[in-house]
Amino acid sequence: MDHVRRISQLRRRMNRAGFSGLLVTHLPDLRYLSGFTGSSAALAVTRRAARLFTDGRYKAQAADEVKGAKVEIVSSGPAISAVQWLVAQPGVAIAGFDPAWTSVAELARLRSALPSKLRRTFLSALSAPLVEPLRLVKDEEELELMSNAALVGCGLFEYILGVIRPGITEMEVAAGLEYQARLRGAEGMSFDTIVASGVRSALPHGRATLAQIPRRGFLTLDFGIIHNGYCSDMTRTVFLGKPQADERKAYEAVLQAQEAAVAAVNSGVSCGEVDEAARSVLRKAGMADAFSHSTGHGVGLEIHEAPRVGAEQKTRLQPGMVVTIEPGVYWPGKFGIRIEDMVAVTQNGGRVLTPAPKALIEL
Amino acid sequence: MDHVRRISQLRRRMNRAGFSGLLVTHLPDLRYLSGFTGSSAALAVTRRAARLFTDGRYKAQAADEVKGAKVEIVSSGPAISAVQWLVAQPGVAIAGFDPAWTSVAELARLRSALPSKLRRTFLSALSAPLVEPLRLVKDEEELELMSNAALVGCGLFEYILGVIRPGITEMEVAAGLEYQARLRGAEGMSFDTIVASGVRSALPHGRATLAQIPRRGFLTLDFGIIHNGYCSDMTRTVFLGKPQADERKAYEAVLQAQEAAVAAVNSGVSCGEVDEAARSVLRKAGMADAFSHSTGHGVGLEIHEAPRVGAEQKTRLQPGMVVTIEPGVYWPGKFGIRIEDMVAVTQNGGRVLTPAPKALIEL
Repeated sequence: MDHVRRISQLRRRMNRAGFSGLLVTHLPDLRYLSGFTGSSAALAVTRRAARLFTDGRYKAQAADEVKGAKVEIVSSGPAISAVQWLVAQPGVAIAGFDPAWTSVAELARLRSALPSKLRRTFLSALSAPLVEPLRLVKDEEELELMSNAALVGCGLFEYILGVIRPGITEMEVAAGLEYQARLRGAEGMSFDTIVASGVRSALPHGRATLAQIPRRGFLTLDFGIIHNGYCSDMTRTVFLGKPQADERKAYEAVLQAQEAAVAAVNSGVSCGEVDEAARSVLRKAGMADAFSHSTGHGVGLEIHEAPRVGAEQKTRLQPGMVVTIEPGVYWPGKFGIRIEDMVAVTQNGGRVLTPAPKALIEL
Repeated sequence: MDHVRRISQLRRRMNRAGFSGLLVTHLPDLRYLSGFTGSSAALAVTRRAARLFTDGRYKAQAADEVKGAKVEIVSSGPAISAVQWLVAQPGVAIAGFDPAWTSVAELARLRSALPSKLRRTFLSALSAPLVEPLRLVKDEEELELMSNAALVGCGLFEYILGVIRPGITEMEVAAGLEYQARLRGAEGMSFDTIVASGVRSALPHGRATLAQIPRRGFLTLDFGIIHNGYCSDMTRTVFLGKPQADERKAYEAVLQAQEAAVAAVNSGVSCGEVDEAARSVLRKAGMADAFSHSTGHGVGLEIHEAPRVGAEQKTRLQPGMVVTIEPGVYWPGKFGIRIEDMVAVTQNGGRVLTPAPKALIEL
């Protein structure tokens, strides 16, 4: 990863926003900028220098991982050390912090560590995030890691089809999936695995339970892994037994909506237009009310990142962005269906990173 | 769970702290007070009423789970709805929020939703947490759930002893452990599973990697499950092959330190005294420098809760508190050892919730 280039890009944004210093404490931002993967650190950036503060537990790891910033091992809190370092740098009059990732209590603690005359002025909330816009557009190396993570996910889906059968619990399905994910190199799951069978498929967030998989009905699998730091995310809905006409019709409508939204993904297109591509198909099918969430979200080092792919969202897609496309329909007490791919935006439309079958699978 | 009683206790604390209203957004606090387990909600409490705000996805779930508070389904953000409800309640002049769990950006958003004349005054940061002191002391029902979670953990340790052998990867050990955890009803792991073998045992936070387990040396397993919402946490260090005298001596010192700290746990004893009980054993053994972290931490709905069991910590243990006791020693490039139990404080000393063997196991 070219961390030096990332910090240069960040400096250009800092300059434009009028910040001579920046405090970064959100760990995914910090990992993106410096390469550090530990769980406690703060990064301080000025026009000339970048320094990462962490504690003794991470001495060897930080020396190994961090690029483009000097590492300093501290015994008190890393964020306080970072602020005290920033205030001592020549030419740093004001340092930005991200208000979305700084608690009210943390800000008070940081301010109280400053000289009293600077307490009110030195730390200033960013009016717009500075690191997020960089992370929004993935570079080649990131896209390769994300594609790999997504392909491992597809392999897991293929594997789990051989496991699913009536009578075993949703938890057993999740357990099998997560076990294989680990064996295939996943650091962990990117969110609680959703295995929602029968009437539970009508729950958009149906985490696996001890419920037994019924002999007949939809089963929704929504899962993701973390692989080399990057998150994958995919959903497939399969059917146990023979679907009736209305079930098949609903599945076909969701599939058409999903494919329409994937086809709408292109450089320059707004997120709202992509959402509308899925929504209009379901509206025509008379299922608009059953589609109760957004079409998708950005994904990368975090499972939910910018941009949001929802109604009226103005953000325009750019090459290198990666979003999920996941329309679904839910009828409480009856059933639900969701189909989701990860899609990378290119100069020529969307590239699906999760090429697992989408035609209705009957088990 | 007696949520009605919990909210009554909270009201007494609100009164004493001078708050006629309270906004609760930290999900474990909210779950503790209301029973709600979803991922998006806010709870508003006044002297007379309590209301939980969540979105349409959780309608059925909230109706099923929430006790002691009325549920309101909202389409905008639940926290904003909660604040707007609070400001409309008679007799609520000021509402507290927990600054540790409220971001600077969120506070600005909440304030901007208030009538302009109340914007600066209505929401006020708590000077000390109000829910945390309640959660600190577990009731009978919670202790039973925690004991169950801990026993499932012990069973996993027994299981995994049959899996560990030279040549398989740390990841395979973690995978096996996590798979069995799921089959035994765990909702997930309470933190990233640590499997640290050979020289990696010297890393206090050695998450499982693709490293192969060497033929000879220590292997540290530190893992926890989430079971009915409650976290377990335990560590055992085993040896592959035959330990040498210095390795055996170090293990015995850690075991003695751990047992001394467990024996020190009692109602009225300070957390600092418990820490010192472990530390003094390692000091006498000439290993004080190698014990580079605190002795333990509280555990419950979250894996790390109050109290901290560290040097100089003044908090006095009370019956119903549950803490981990986990001294360790680490020599980078050589090896490390840690032994950890969960211990519930009773009127008559500590009750170990994780009764798995601690004498050195040679595999």
